[in-house]
Amino acid sequence: MLKKVLLGSLGAALVLTAGILLGHFGIQRGSTAPDWVMDVTQDVDEALIQKFIVEVDNIAIQENLRELTKVPHMATSPGDEQTVQYMLKRWQDPDTGLDQAWREEYKVYLSFPDPNTPNKVTVVCVCVCVCVCVCVCCQGRLVYANQGKPSDYFLLNQTLNLTGTVAITRYGGEGRAGKAINAAPYGVIGVLVYTDPWDINDGKMSDNNETYPFSWYMPPSGVERGSFNTHYGDMLTPYLAAKDDTYRIPEKNITGIPPIPTQPIGFEDAYALICELGGEPAPSEWQGAFNCTYNFGGPGFKPTSNFNNSDVKLDIYNREELKNSANVMGVIRGSVEPDRYVIYGNHRDSWVHGAIDPSSGTSVMLEVTRVLGRMVKQGKWRPRRSIIFGSWGAEEFGLIGSTEYTEEYYSKLSERSVAYINVDIAVKTPGSDSTSVYDNWIRYFNRTSPAYGVIPNVGFLTGAGSDYAAFIHFLGITSMDISYTYDRTKTRARIYPAYHTAYDTFDYASKFIDPGFTSHQTVARTAGNVLIRLADSLLLPFNCSDYAETLEGYLSKAMELYTDGLAAHMISIGGSQSLAYTHTHTHTHTQRGMGGQRKGHVIWASSKAGQATFPGLADAYTRAASTGLDSDWKEAHRQLSILIQAIQGAAHTLGDAI
Amino acid sequence: MLKKVLLGSLGAALVLTAGILLGHFGIQRGSTAPDWVMDVTQDVDEALIQKFIVEVDNIAIQENLRELTKVPHMATSPGDEQTVQYMLKRWQDPDTGLDQAWREEYKVYLSFPDPNTPNKVTVVCVCVCVCVCVCVCCQGRLVYANQGKPSDYFLLNQTLNLTGTVAITRYGGEGRAGKAINAAPYGVIGVLVYTDPWDINDGKMSDNNETYPFSWYMPPSGVERGSFNTHYGDMLTPYLAAKDDTYRIPEKNITGIPPIPTQPIGFEDAYALICELGGEPAPSEWQGAFNCTYNFGGPGFKPTSNFNNSDVKLDIYNREELKNSANVMGVIRGSVEPDRYVIYGNHRDSWVHGAIDPSSGTSVMLEVTRVLGRMVKQGKWRPRRSIIFGSWGAEEFGLIGSTEYTEEYYSKLSERSVAYINVDIAVKTPGSDSTSVYDNWIRYFNRTSPAYGVIPNVGFLTGAGSDYAAFIHFLGITSMDISYTYDRTKTRARIYPAYHTAYDTFDYASKFIDPGFTSHQTVARTAGNVLIRLADSLLLPFNCSDYAETLEGYLSKAMELYTDGLAAHMISIGGSQSLAYTHTHTHTHTQRGMGGQRKGHVIWASSKAGQATFPGLADAYTRAASTGLDSDWKEAHRQLSILIQAIQGAAHTLGDAI
Repeated sequence: MLKKVLLGSLGAALVLTAGILLGHFGIQRGSTAPDWVMDVTQDVDEALIQKFIVEVDNIAIQENLRELTKVPHMATSPGDEQTVQYMLKRWQDPDTGLDQAWREEYKVYLSFPDPNTPNKVTVVCVCVCVCVCVCVCCQGRLVYANQGKPSDYFLLNQTLNLTGTVAITRYGGEGRAGKAINAAPYGVIGVLVYTDPWDINDGKMSDNNETYPFSWYMPPSGVERGSFNTHYGDMLTPYLAAKDDTYRIPEKNITGIPPIPTQPIGFEDAYALICELGGEPAPSEWQGAFNCTYNFGGPGFKPTSNFNNSDVKLDIYNREELKNSANVMGVIRGSVEPDRYVIYGNHRDSWVHGAIDPSSGTSVMLEVTRVLGRMVKQGKWRPRRSIIFGSWGAEEFGLIGSTEYTEEYYSKLSERSVAYINVDIAVKTPGSDSTSVYDNWIRYFNRTSPAYGVIPNVGFLTGAGSDYAAFIHFLGITSMDISYTYDRTKTRARIYPAYHTAYDTFDYASKFIDPGFTSHQTVARTAGNVLIRLADSLLLPFNCSDYAETLEGYLSKAMELYTDGLAAHMISIGGSQSLAYTHTHTHTHTQRGMGGQRKGHVIWASSKAGQATFPGLADAYTRAASTGLDSDWKEAHRQLSILIQAIQGAAHTLGDAI
Repeated sequence: MLKKVLLGSLGAALVLTAGILLGHFGIQRGSTAPDWVMDVTQDVDEALIQKFIVEVDNIAIQENLRELTKVPHMATSPGDEQTVQYMLKRWQDPDTGLDQAWREEYKVYLSFPDPNTPNKVTVVCVCVCVCVCVCVCCQGRLVYANQGKPSDYFLLNQTLNLTGTVAITRYGGEGRAGKAINAAPYGVIGVLVYTDPWDINDGKMSDNNETYPFSWYMPPSGVERGSFNTHYGDMLTPYLAAKDDTYRIPEKNITGIPPIPTQPIGFEDAYALICELGGEPAPSEWQGAFNCTYNFGGPGFKPTSNFNNSDVKLDIYNREELKNSANVMGVIRGSVEPDRYVIYGNHRDSWVHGAIDPSSGTSVMLEVTRVLGRMVKQGKWRPRRSIIFGSWGAEEFGLIGSTEYTEEYYSKLSERSVAYINVDIAVKTPGSDSTSVYDNWIRYFNRTSPAYGVIPNVGFLTGAGSDYAAFIHFLGITSMDISYTYDRTKTRARIYPAYHTAYDTFDYASKFIDPGFTSHQTVARTAGNVLIRLADSLLLPFNCSDYAETLEGYLSKAMELYTDGLAAHMISIGGSQSLAYTHTHTHTHTQRGMGGQRKGHVIWASSKAGQATFPGLADAYTRAASTGLDSDWKEAHRQLSILIQAIQGAAHTLGDAI
């Protein structure tokens, strides 16, 4: 029924547009129609796409990457400014640049280590410690908490008292912030996080012959950095663009920061700590690649350890600063619908040299703009709709540049944007050139469609892992994230091993990730192909029935999981209303302005519940079912009402003209 | 500059639309164009408007009013249901009804007096009072607080200690809720409110020959009721439509209700209390029409009064209930743009018989729908755009029916509505038929336009006095409120004297407000004229330069009033940015989703500051300037940032295609 309504609506639009534009002019007038009629009725040109694909050059991408990764370019650093200048130079090039390019500046709130007083993790003898630091300084017995999931701390708390302890956790299984957020209620005072060679290196540990520079694996000293807050955008200016004069909330009102500090360390340091831990052995699922038994901790170290009776002390000297961060923007103006935008973007800032994250994506973007820019400059092509390119700043600190951009241009972007394409980490793994993108795709990631049989699958863009988040969650714009990814049969690595470490360099990328840059070339061709089709198609190539299938799946999953639990608390999910409405329509929906809370998309927002169903409801239900608190059941009810109203609102819009 | 940009934009739209639709077909093809081309390019038909005007019948309106006011029809009462049935019958009439009509039901939270235990105001001897009531029961010495404005309590507090007192106030000068909200910080425990004959009756007080049924003036026993909360919409379901299964907030979380009770009384009771008050004489501006000196109160009564040493006691037995409230909806489907809506509405519920408020408006609406409905049924006319008629429920309790409607259909209405027309109290005063609407209008309410010289003025639709509030403040839809109003040289009455009393009856309306119902007829003709033009015009007849003029006025007023005060707190209003942006555009803007607070329109929301400038900024500035608190200056800064971002957002949209 849902599908029927959707396809019906789409059909009606087709009749109207095509009827007026093509039928009337095309049929009645044939080729004698005036030029402007030919122009406005021009559909996507397949020959042009072929020409684009031929012109995308792997060596050009390689040279982009070399240039972009010359110096470390963490957000707002001098290296970052160097990349701003480089982007501007490229996008303003008279032969291969865009119609226009400029920088947009925000003043954002970032946290940096103090270069003169680095953060420290020390093992200290309890009796001599006098804590006089002018920093966050916490000290306690060490425990091993696996991945820092709620269930990990729950189990650990069964065997020992966590109050006053420092927990060491490995990456994976839980978001960065979650490891500390989950720990705090048990009295844990600080968290260490490291990357276990089991999770990233397929067990390899030796820096003599097994890890980079001998292979793509992370060396023992590699430290995975990252942002440890749960919200995105500048923390002092929620919903407002962080311009110079913008109102900023008091620091004490910042939300989304874990209540206790977290310090990432490399696995060589983690090895020295974990293998000395006392207490009971942890369960087998908690064991990693170190050649010792991972114990829970006494808490603290073994009686036989040199560290016996010692605490672990974290000295965190990070300072918060207001810094200028720039987005670099470029446009190719549309010919027929200049006020409809296809947006293509990636962040520019890295943690260190950032060859793969983000410069692989930026190198691809620059090659796409070079080829398209030249076509435009030569007068060979101009897209139907405008294309806006964005090189975002300060993504690594919480998707800040892209979020501020969506806040500043909220009205315009939400009314006019057709789609957002994100290419951040373009290539995650060494590839093979032997098959086409289509053949590879359908082989490794496919699904069975009722209409078309086995087809390449497009995953759900959930989470908030890159700059698409503000576009899809906040503006409600159709978004896509493209990358060349893994054959999971070949490695267990969570992600490419140098991710967010100082080893993510041009040398690493060109030797181990994509020698010859042909995978980059493939991504540039694919992303450009999608971009041209979105910009040039007479009718937008969106398949609404996919959305309908998803909503139907979400609905039946929600009915299956939640009906009984909600009914037990007098909340009706299966009421004829919600059910009937969900079945008679679809459409996307940011629920705007629901008071009090950071709003999110009712279909595509991030969820921790791990179920393919409505995220707000799923998270609230999971929480209520676990705490049993009346206030949590009320919140589940509230989330259900928000969801129903949003979907019904979409239904009203799609259902009928009135 | 602002105007230039605006007119420029409008001009471009004209060229595009008219160029394609009229130029291409009209000029090249002349009258040989196919029927559908003639249909879609049909502009408003002046002959049809003349026909409409001729057919509007004053006696039909009179009979509508007689029918609507047969029984009291307070929201959700049996009388209310009777009017629902009547509206449905009329709108479903096969000869004069609409294309479709139906009811929409909400379950809303209302407060009613207990019919078995009426609320009471008693003068009690202090020594014998034992308060054992199961109600809000407050008792204290009486004081006179003029209109209950902040300045009134401030002054009163200079002369006596207000702690534990009951304040009697007169209507006017301050909103209903404000009289109690302003009182509470001084320790006042309850408020009485009455209508002084000075303010409503031009001083007339005698029920022997001066007041109704001898004239239009309010009799001594007349009590003006009203809603005493500051927010609108159902109190338990902010931002969500109050359907059966909707999540409701806990009652303790309700906002917008004054912290102390207020009881309205008639002026005969107020006379008995005020003229007995002791203490110093109040200032001359505080004196009303009673033939005694209005004293502040001792607190309490004069030593010579029979009430000496007595308190005044309020027993409030109101109960809150969840009740079903209906909107009645009707539509005439548009022919060319069925998915663009012109909405026309009025509330249906009254306090008692409600002849003028709201039934004068509903009688007019029914006459408009009768004439238009018959044209449609006879196949003589169908509007270009769809017309939606709404007969709203529970307006008197806080604009509830219309607000729930805008919440339920938020997405659709905000995307598709062209305008909202409200006709509540259609006729406020006896009129004269001697001149045309235009001549009367330009004589009594005009302005000088740079382009057209002296023209009829259209006032600003500020405040939240009727159902337009949710449409303009929440949805951001262009709205209009139409009524036949006063010649201020002839009466000092705040509003027609029977307003919100039991004397607002058909007899009162037909004898004293509009004998012959010709003023009602004039309003029906005017409202219908506007409605047809909005529904039928090829280009919407909105004059954007009016908006530009208003924004320019607001800006210069804000600069004049606030620049120095804000600068003293390091907040920049005159920064080149805000100024330049405000000067380069316009457009309306609801700032959506600004977290935490009930959102409002940055240009047209209600303001207490009484300045023709941006309401959010004006209120926050006024408050900060009065308290001097750092947190209040921060709020002023926040409001300024919201304003700048909203206006800049509009500017970005209007400024250029990209």
